[in-house]
Amino acid sequence: MSETVSTPRVVIDDEEIFAAHVGGKLSVELKAPLDTQRALSIAYTPGVAQVSRAIAADHTLAARYTWSNRLVAVISDGTAVLGLGDIGPAASLPVMEGKSALFKTFGGLDSIPIVLDTKDPDEIVETIIRLRPTFGAVNLEDISAPRCFEIERRLIEALDCPVMHDDQHGTAIVVLAALIGATKVLDRDMHSLKVVMSGAGAAGVACTNILLAAGITDITVLDSQGILHTGRDDMNSVKAEMATRTNPRGLTGGIAEALNGADVFMGVSAGLVPEELIATMTPGGIVFAMSNPDPEIHPDAARKHAAIVATGRSDFPNQINNVLAFPGVFRGALDAGARRITEKMKVAAAEAIFSVVGDDLAADHIVPSPLDPRVGPAVAAAVAAASEA
Amino acid sequence: MSETVSTPRVVIDDEEIFAAHVGGKLSVELKAPLDTQRALSIAYTPGVAQVSRAIAADHTLAARYTWSNRLVAVISDGTAVLGLGDIGPAASLPVMEGKSALFKTFGGLDSIPIVLDTKDPDEIVETIIRLRPTFGAVNLEDISAPRCFEIERRLIEALDCPVMHDDQHGTAIVVLAALIGATKVLDRDMHSLKVVMSGAGAAGVACTNILLAAGITDITVLDSQGILHTGRDDMNSVKAEMATRTNPRGLTGGIAEALNGADVFMGVSAGLVPEELIATMTPGGIVFAMSNPDPEIHPDAARKHAAIVATGRSDFPNQINNVLAFPGVFRGALDAGARRITEKMKVAAAEAIFSVVGDDLAADHIVPSPLDPRVGPAVAAAVAAASEA
Repeated sequence: MSETVSTPRVVIDDEEIFAAHVGGKLSVELKAPLDTQRALSIAYTPGVAQVSRAIAADHTLAARYTWSNRLVAVISDGTAVLGLGDIGPAASLPVMEGKSALFKTFGGLDSIPIVLDTKDPDEIVETIIRLRPTFGAVNLEDISAPRCFEIERRLIEALDCPVMHDDQHGTAIVVLAALIGATKVLDRDMHSLKVVMSGAGAAGVACTNILLAAGITDITVLDSQGILHTGRDDMNSVKAEMATRTNPRGLTGGIAEALNGADVFMGVSAGLVPEELIATMTPGGIVFAMSNPDPEIHPDAARKHAAIVATGRSDFPNQINNVLAFPGVFRGALDAGARRITEKMKVAAAEAIFSVVGDDLAADHIVPSPLDPRVGPAVAAAVAAASEA
Repeated sequence: MSETVSTPRVVIDDEEIFAAHVGGKLSVELKAPLDTQRALSIAYTPGVAQVSRAIAADHTLAARYTWSNRLVAVISDGTAVLGLGDIGPAASLPVMEGKSALFKTFGGLDSIPIVLDTKDPDEIVETIIRLRPTFGAVNLEDISAPRCFEIERRLIEALDCPVMHDDQHGTAIVVLAALIGATKVLDRDMHSLKVVMSGAGAAGVACTNILLAAGITDITVLDSQGILHTGRDDMNSVKAEMATRTNPRGLTGGIAEALNGADVFMGVSAGLVPEELIATMTPGGIVFAMSNPDPEIHPDAARKHAAIVATGRSDFPNQINNVLAFPGVFRGALDAGARRITEKMKVAAAEAIFSVVGDDLAADHIVPSPLDPRVGPAVAAAVAAASEA
């Protein structure tokens, strides 16, 4: 790792991290106190019976008289947690609690973490369908590929509410926003970029799809076995399909062959990339090393060879952080009463994220800070507008 | 209905009730704000990865570093909601939200309402087992009998955490507490009472069991077809078994035959009882008309014939309200790290509830007010102590 520390770093020791997690990060609170007999008679018996009777007669009233219609279920099976892999549902829970905290802070939405003790796609889908009256939207989280594609697809078909696997589409939306920002800084035409996507899991597939949709034609995707190309016979169906839509120059080999002369490296794989290979990219390029918690290449090293460097971490500049997308995406979808989160809504979200950067756009500021309070409302408004069109 | 209004009543119109339910009664809040880059780096990436790694290495650490270990799941299928019956999961949600509000207010426990879109006991059990890493205890709620008995039994066997069907055991605990109080006021020996239990569903069965355990021998239980007796062949297995342990005088017939000369009427059935039949009870008796929202007999009418009258409603005196039991029972079980809620813990809870009434014991004050802040801690301490013995 480079000894050059060019970035202000937040140094946090484990003791502080663990102390902040004791008892978890969330609490359930009352909107109004139950401190009088009258309050108790309204919120519980006998008053609540009137509300239950009304909903029994007209189920749509549940949207108005319970929290469910705007409650996001953050659901994981713990099979692909951050860059840590299949660490199980219990170990994934701190991440899901964090996600719920982000939903509240940046989207103003209540949410509950739900972690499932099953990895079977059929069981995951049927369990969530059975939970349906509990919530108003589903944020799937940290579910491994390729299972995540099937699970999301089946839930979108089965449920009459917004469903989004954030590791796919949240990441893709922010990547598109960041690439718009980076190309503006560099005054480059986005469509002519040669892009290397290292990772063909949830994030890699979704990022590739959104970049293709944005008109980028030269994308080389890699999995752990190397470049996806139509001559390979060791790929799952999702990768095989992706190979037909990417790699127009018919490259074969590994990361070295892919990076040679590339303009953009996007890492969503947790696989480390040596600095020597980044050095073979076209000078003045773009590196998004997004794996968490360990970027594919240290940003200080990447910055020696690329004009713009971004990571997934909050302690470096240009954080490609899903939090820029998912709170506003769900808020906008729920505000609009949308039953689906469409491609059009996702692109609108990316453009809204980029729009917030505005005059502050710079090589070390291609996306807004995750703490920028303007982002959530801007994304929500854009998504809601796109859903209505 | 009697024109005599001897009880101060809380009059609440529907408009106020519905207004108080708009958007639901709960919110999810952060224990610490995410308003700095440092806070974000601790609660989310990269900091949270340390916590997830630690839990992956030692699953027991989830109890310390997430909210799950003390989180109560309030779970219903909406099949037996209050006295309203099978109104479905969506319509049950306002009640579950109210329950969560009560858990927080009187037990200091976070809880989440979960309503299931299935009535199949196998599916309910397997769904809750799959959700296991999400929570630390299960409060089953408003699930119809006799399904509730099997569902509770199977979950107690399958899960290594406290599981209690509140409509059974919460009710039974408070009924026992109230009966202790009533017999003290009347200076009666509890064991010699002739008790009529109108209802052989969740609450009726559990109340009968706890009264039998408390040494009461003459209990006549009725379902919608009349008195349970061993000569009937139209009873489910739970009722058939109950018939062998109750009705020592071999009564047959209906509520008229049961009430004639009885000392105690306990209504947990939603079936109305005419005042003329209450008048046939032994004078100076006890009436607990607990159905919600509509008591089996109006308390003003019952009071003409019984020395002590209680209901399930918050707008009459002597409210037999589960809230006196369940927050403290779960809090005590979780405080003690108990894996089961045993009969001994339930009896300890009843005695603790009675103990709080203390010197204020009177005919119109046989149980503490549900708002009495001493009850939850007293019950929790008694339950925790009983679990350790």
